[in-house]
Amino acid sequence: MTGYADVARVEAMIQGIDQFNATPGQGTTRLTYSPEYAGARDYVIDQMLQGGLSVRQDAVGNVFGRIEGSQPDLAPILVGSHLDSVPNGGRFDGPAGVVAGLETAFLFRDLGLVPERPIEVIALIEEEGSRFGGGLMGSRLLTGQLDAASLHDLRDDDGVSAAEAMTAFGLDPLQAGQAVLQPGSVHAFLELHIEQGPVLEAERKDVAIVDRIVGLAQLKVTVRGKAGHAGTTPMDARQDALTGAVAILSQLPDLARQVGRGSVLTVGKLEVLPGGANVIPDLVSFTVDLRAPQEDDVMRLIEMTRAAAARAAGNGLTCDVEQQLYAPPTPMSAQIHAALSAQAEALGLSQREMVSGAGHDAMIMARFAPTGLVFVPSRGGISHAPEEWTDFAQLARGIDVIFATIRQMSRARPDPAT
Amino acid sequence: MTGYADVARVEAMIQGIDQFNATPGQGTTRLTYSPEYAGARDYVIDQMLQGGLSVRQDAVGNVFGRIEGSQPDLAPILVGSHLDSVPNGGRFDGPAGVVAGLETAFLFRDLGLVPERPIEVIALIEEEGSRFGGGLMGSRLLTGQLDAASLHDLRDDDGVSAAEAMTAFGLDPLQAGQAVLQPGSVHAFLELHIEQGPVLEAERKDVAIVDRIVGLAQLKVTVRGKAGHAGTTPMDARQDALTGAVAILSQLPDLARQVGRGSVLTVGKLEVLPGGANVIPDLVSFTVDLRAPQEDDVMRLIEMTRAAAARAAGNGLTCDVEQQLYAPPTPMSAQIHAALSAQAEALGLSQREMVSGAGHDAMIMARFAPTGLVFVPSRGGISHAPEEWTDFAQLARGIDVIFATIRQMSRARPDPAT
Repeated sequence: MTGYADVARVEAMIQGIDQFNATPGQGTTRLTYSPEYAGARDYVIDQMLQGGLSVRQDAVGNVFGRIEGSQPDLAPILVGSHLDSVPNGGRFDGPAGVVAGLETAFLFRDLGLVPERPIEVIALIEEEGSRFGGGLMGSRLLTGQLDAASLHDLRDDDGVSAAEAMTAFGLDPLQAGQAVLQPGSVHAFLELHIEQGPVLEAERKDVAIVDRIVGLAQLKVTVRGKAGHAGTTPMDARQDALTGAVAILSQLPDLARQVGRGSVLTVGKLEVLPGGANVIPDLVSFTVDLRAPQEDDVMRLIEMTRAAAARAAGNGLTCDVEQQLYAPPTPMSAQIHAALSAQAEALGLSQREMVSGAGHDAMIMARFAPTGLVFVPSRGGISHAPEEWTDFAQLARGIDVIFATIRQMSRARPDPAT
Repeated sequence: MTGYADVARVEAMIQGIDQFNATPGQGTTRLTYSPEYAGARDYVIDQMLQGGLSVRQDAVGNVFGRIEGSQPDLAPILVGSHLDSVPNGGRFDGPAGVVAGLETAFLFRDLGLVPERPIEVIALIEEEGSRFGGGLMGSRLLTGQLDAASLHDLRDDDGVSAAEAMTAFGLDPLQAGQAVLQPGSVHAFLELHIEQGPVLEAERKDVAIVDRIVGLAQLKVTVRGKAGHAGTTPMDARQDALTGAVAILSQLPDLARQVGRGSVLTVGKLEVLPGGANVIPDLVSFTVDLRAPQEDDVMRLIEMTRAAAARAAGNGLTCDVEQQLYAPPTPMSAQIHAALSAQAEALGLSQREMVSGAGHDAMIMARFAPTGLVFVPSRGGISHAPEEWTDFAQLARGIDVIFATIRQMSRARPDPAT
């Protein structure tokens, strides 16, 4: 059967957002509150206005575009995702879900549908944590799971605090607390996201309806030693922070293999100071990203990483482990899962259930309101890389599931005025 | 006996240079062509003018202050060191030698001495290589051991080429070739430097007369893999560049212990890209600094590092090793060594011979003109760190050796006009 979403419009919106990119030709880099972020946000606002939505930006920079309901006092259905990217990542991670919301709005307009319950398309900040660390900042602020005061503590690699970056972006950090949504003010949250893994492509499935999201933790390990001259300090008189860090790093990937059951462990960010080629490092810090479908396994991986760090300490080296983020495995709403699955079935699409290995805004929102998450295929399973790709026709099929489910959940009817 | 150098004046000049520092309170950071570098250079020029020297800056930013000789056509004796620092280093590494030159000039003025042979006090750029890599750039350019064209290729961490930085500093990179000294145009080079190691302090010796400088090589190892999402890429499907780099890094310190005979090996600079906490790294690059008193041992360490990198390649990872710098062990001039030693003896100072574990401008200059190098004690052997320290009275004793040797070598006599 033919779907609803306009493939050409979907493609145009993905490319429209992707034109705002700090590293053209080397993947997509769009850090929160950057000039590129402002450009993408303005593009999304423009699409919202073209779609007839009423637009507001909240106090931390999340953008909402509202389709008013015939019963405007009902709590709205939120649909969307994030606009920021990792450094040198892809164009779909985040924007695909924002475009799913925008296209849903365009379909409501094109089909002359009026929902009983209001619908709000949302574009969230800083899901990746690539600028201020930790991640999921937009949805955590929105749902009161991150204190606005911490905006003064979270800093980027240049030492700029989130609060300072907000000010430069035209926001007032003193007002950040106003972004927090009232409990009960959201009826449901729906997110479309690319799978970022190889399963849908390998099984030739159109969509995955996510059952739950893995538990994850992010640790920061800091090894401190003593600087010294590379040429005049005998090997046995060194307190080389990098040697200590390597002793930890060399054990880490095996920990995930040891625990197994779908566990993964990644060190993606590592800094060596002072950073002179002929200076013995006195400080090395690195992130450890741990994930597992079972909460026990996440806890075990944290303990094992802490133990590896403890073993590397001594001989003048100290090793500290700081937990920057923890999220237990998060189930999605069974009711919304069933609704999404039924609509996919009605649309004639092939589908499967899935445990998401990636954290998403849906993970945070699920603690606040009933939440559903739909995946579309990623070519080669590649994500967070310039080669990240989803065919636009496949993306459109996922959007059809989102649209049809929201149409049903919002009790949309043809506008009697048209 | 009482020495010549004015301890208070020496201290004032060390502090005068150190006021130009990008990281006050966190050691000294003065990168070549930075605003701090310009400040320190201007301070040195001002001291030279106060000492009655005629000053010139060459085409790449090295500064020369000349005491004219009664036979001005004789090739001059050069005395000095470098003005740049490592990041968060100390205040003596480099400036101690520049101040030795300046104080020598002040002593000539104060004592009313006129040399037969001209003397030139020099302050050199970019010895550490902390901005453009490789190191010893000022002396290499000066002696034709680095092609001026390479100024367009050498880049700092922000991608700024040395040529671009020169332009911003007010120099014309097209004129850089004019900095090269003519063969035979230098009679001798004398350098004072801090030991940067613990030996003089431990043995309570006043000075070391350096016999030769260790051989050293600097390699850059680059490991390339494939980026991917930290949550959705199974452990066994990864091409993680950091895992490959760690496999190499975990072998490196032991290589130097294996080779022994005073060998040292340091990884001081390491970069992980793209650098997102939830992104599998696709590129890791790091420096390897190798040093040994015996040339065979340097060659062996290079080969062993290359072999370790080759073993880490495969499974989707490539490992490249690029040699960025190589310098064989360098003997100092036996004649100047004898002169320095005799003057130290005459001054009643305790002394010893030493192999320098650190490369110095003297290493480069020794291939161009007869060269001598004097060390003064470093407290705790610490260098390239904020704690780097030499008592000013100890520094003054080293300067006395330099001054007395230059006085003799230049055949200085009391000015008949005074």
